[in-house]
Amino acid sequence: MVAPDRFSTGESNLDLHSKDQSQHPACRPEAVIWPVDRVEVSEILKYANKNLIPVTGWGAGTSLEGNPIPVKAGIVLDFSQMNKILDIKEEDFQTDVEPGVIYQDLNEKLRHKGLFFPPDPGAQATIGGMIANNASGTRTVHYGSTKDYVLRLSVVLANGEIIETGTRASKTSSGYDLIHLFVGSEGTLGIMVEATLRLVGLPAEFSAAIVTFPSVEAAGKAVYEIIRSGLDPAALELLAPDCIKLINQEQDLGLNVSPTLFMEYHGPTKNQLAEVLEMVQEICKGEGSGEFRSGLGRTERDHLFKARHELAEMIIRNHPDCSLMVIDVAVPITAYPEIIAFVIEESEKIGIPGYIFGHAGDGNLHLVFMGKTGDEREWKVIDQANQHIVSKALDMGGTATGEHGVGIGKRKFMDAEHGKSLEWMKRIKDLFDPNGILNPGKIFPCK
Amino acid sequence: MVAPDRFSTGESNLDLHSKDQSQHPACRPEAVIWPVDRVEVSEILKYANKNLIPVTGWGAGTSLEGNPIPVKAGIVLDFSQMNKILDIKEEDFQTDVEPGVIYQDLNEKLRHKGLFFPPDPGAQATIGGMIANNASGTRTVHYGSTKDYVLRLSVVLANGEIIETGTRASKTSSGYDLIHLFVGSEGTLGIMVEATLRLVGLPAEFSAAIVTFPSVEAAGKAVYEIIRSGLDPAALELLAPDCIKLINQEQDLGLNVSPTLFMEYHGPTKNQLAEVLEMVQEICKGEGSGEFRSGLGRTERDHLFKARHELAEMIIRNHPDCSLMVIDVAVPITAYPEIIAFVIEESEKIGIPGYIFGHAGDGNLHLVFMGKTGDEREWKVIDQANQHIVSKALDMGGTATGEHGVGIGKRKFMDAEHGKSLEWMKRIKDLFDPNGILNPGKIFPCK
Repeated sequence: MVAPDRFSTGESNLDLHSKDQSQHPACRPEAVIWPVDRVEVSEILKYANKNLIPVTGWGAGTSLEGNPIPVKAGIVLDFSQMNKILDIKEEDFQTDVEPGVIYQDLNEKLRHKGLFFPPDPGAQATIGGMIANNASGTRTVHYGSTKDYVLRLSVVLANGEIIETGTRASKTSSGYDLIHLFVGSEGTLGIMVEATLRLVGLPAEFSAAIVTFPSVEAAGKAVYEIIRSGLDPAALELLAPDCIKLINQEQDLGLNVSPTLFMEYHGPTKNQLAEVLEMVQEICKGEGSGEFRSGLGRTERDHLFKARHELAEMIIRNHPDCSLMVIDVAVPITAYPEIIAFVIEESEKIGIPGYIFGHAGDGNLHLVFMGKTGDEREWKVIDQANQHIVSKALDMGGTATGEHGVGIGKRKFMDAEHGKSLEWMKRIKDLFDPNGILNPGKIFPCK
Repeated sequence: MVAPDRFSTGESNLDLHSKDQSQHPACRPEAVIWPVDRVEVSEILKYANKNLIPVTGWGAGTSLEGNPIPVKAGIVLDFSQMNKILDIKEEDFQTDVEPGVIYQDLNEKLRHKGLFFPPDPGAQATIGGMIANNASGTRTVHYGSTKDYVLRLSVVLANGEIIETGTRASKTSSGYDLIHLFVGSEGTLGIMVEATLRLVGLPAEFSAAIVTFPSVEAAGKAVYEIIRSGLDPAALELLAPDCIKLINQEQDLGLNVSPTLFMEYHGPTKNQLAEVLEMVQEICKGEGSGEFRSGLGRTERDHLFKARHELAEMIIRNHPDCSLMVIDVAVPITAYPEIIAFVIEESEKIGIPGYIFGHAGDGNLHLVFMGKTGDEREWKVIDQANQHIVSKALDMGGTATGEHGVGIGKRKFMDAEHGKSLEWMKRIKDLFDPNGILNPGKIFPCK
């Protein structure tokens, strides 16, 4: 079905496709295939469907909930050879891409045309993975999530059928929205083989600010006031004191070790952004802010945000012999200070290093626990803390996962989060994939 | 099942629920019921499902494609008594509403809290109708469509089951997105009984401009350059010369009779908006613009946009004894000048008054044909022009309906627009509504 050099059952290839960046246990597939076009994907799925062989799509393996771990073995489809940017329709603000295109590579290419694709999950993610998990990141507060940027999809269904859905128009009210059904479905309803993405113009000017606060509550209040004011931040990130301590130590920034907001603003001129920064500073002062560092222009923005962007790496580097679990709850923004307080308490209770940061403008909180790899007792404790935190977020009207997807780690919360609508999700799954071959063992709780 | 005064088979009530604002033929239901809560809706659907009685939801009857016309008779559920704003969570930028809430009433209430619900389909639409049709309007270019504002839904399914789906968090990657499946499904998958809507802060300052151009192409080019620049218009509307002629005549504005852009900008200060207007004027001049009228502040904005907002009424008033058909195609924005040229040609060819205007920033074009009510020959000609225009839009990669929904009028284009994915939409319909009782005869082509 495929050329022999694009099919492997070799140990090292199976190992490479057995785990993502999470702490979830590795599980090897039986074979890895690197398809080169939709016809191959269709043929493979037809065969797998007939022979009841699990098929799991693979992007870059940068996910954080075990989303592409082939827990039922079978075939992994690695899309690294379907990585072409097929077209950039500059004046329509659109691009057609294959699933294996790397997020960073796409934006590098688009930059020269004055355009960009805003969801910002991490530089190495693939577009296919981003669509599968409805990924988002620091810029979502202004620009939205991946789901807001998918105009058209070509999808191979479990039975091998290839369908196209969506439109090149920027809006539509025509029929049921299958696009949003596939986005975030983690490859359990079909396998995406081409997408048309909406793009936006690169802002003319950038600015950023770092502001410290006496308490998480004060920072949370400032977040609310900034959003309320219509100042429209392009990023609005909160870092807890432990993260600031680490940043100071690694990059010698000399920041006050206290709750800190990292903010970014985009606009047409430096003048406008200077005015915006003044208004932001005024708001922050009103909430008792301490230090206020700010800068105008792309270089200054990059400089100020460097620490934020490298934070996850710093955490990992500082805890060798540890694995990470990233908690990814999102809550209504008024509940943000309370969930942070709760998370701090849980983290202190179990005495395991936990770094708290998040996309405050979206009410999305991350808590990174660094647990000793293989230490079962420690991981049991972390798992209990995770359980408490997610349950608390759900009680607050929030969600178990703001941007990392359900994968393996969040399955057990699906009943609590979705109630009876989970049964309808399962019926949709059974409609599209009656034999259950697509990424089995994900999203739905194990019975 | 319901109090006798909320059930009617009276002629006048049946007539009132037999047609919307479109030219589609009236069709009476057998009964109208005004439910007051979800339990009643559930009981009615259980009964109807068992007895195979069609059930169609009814908001304000302001739709333009016959969307709520009960073509298979049965029961119409009129939601005008489920019109409560249940809660406004001001600091979470959320409101919980019943389906019968009127768009304008909601925004009137929200204004006092410095908030608003942006999709702008027309003042009298209900939230239920907006959700059913994924309605949008003049502000969609900046603020998006209804689908971008629905966080949670309570839906009664065909079998009477009540499900809740979504989250109060502003983002989520948890499970399949049922919200977007229900939004725009025109009451064919379930009947919405409560929604949580995302809100945005009222901008501090407003501005507007009216700019004339020598040609549609020049205006189209200006639209592209404005979007490209990141100046982020809150509305970007194109009116063809016939509309300007009508506006001059009705409101004595003395505008040049030529293709004209109506634009709106929102921002934190008048200074910023003045700067934006200068940049916009510069861009327009580069495309050979003629007159440039602009104003700062809410009053000036309202004054400049009055004519645009009243355009549809003016058209109707000027053609007594006529019915209207509104063509509602959307295309990629580079195709906008070409579809306008095509539409002008079609309109001139058939010699029936046609008013061209649209949400240029979204590539969404309206052509309002005023045909003599009951004149079969004339309506046949209009129908042919509609056929040509929609087919042209689909050839350009566009959609048959940008914001009015499929209803009755666009069913025949669904095969051409969706191909094989239409079959999957039908399978989803059959999954949720196996007896086909929910708003039958809509969206899917008649076999």
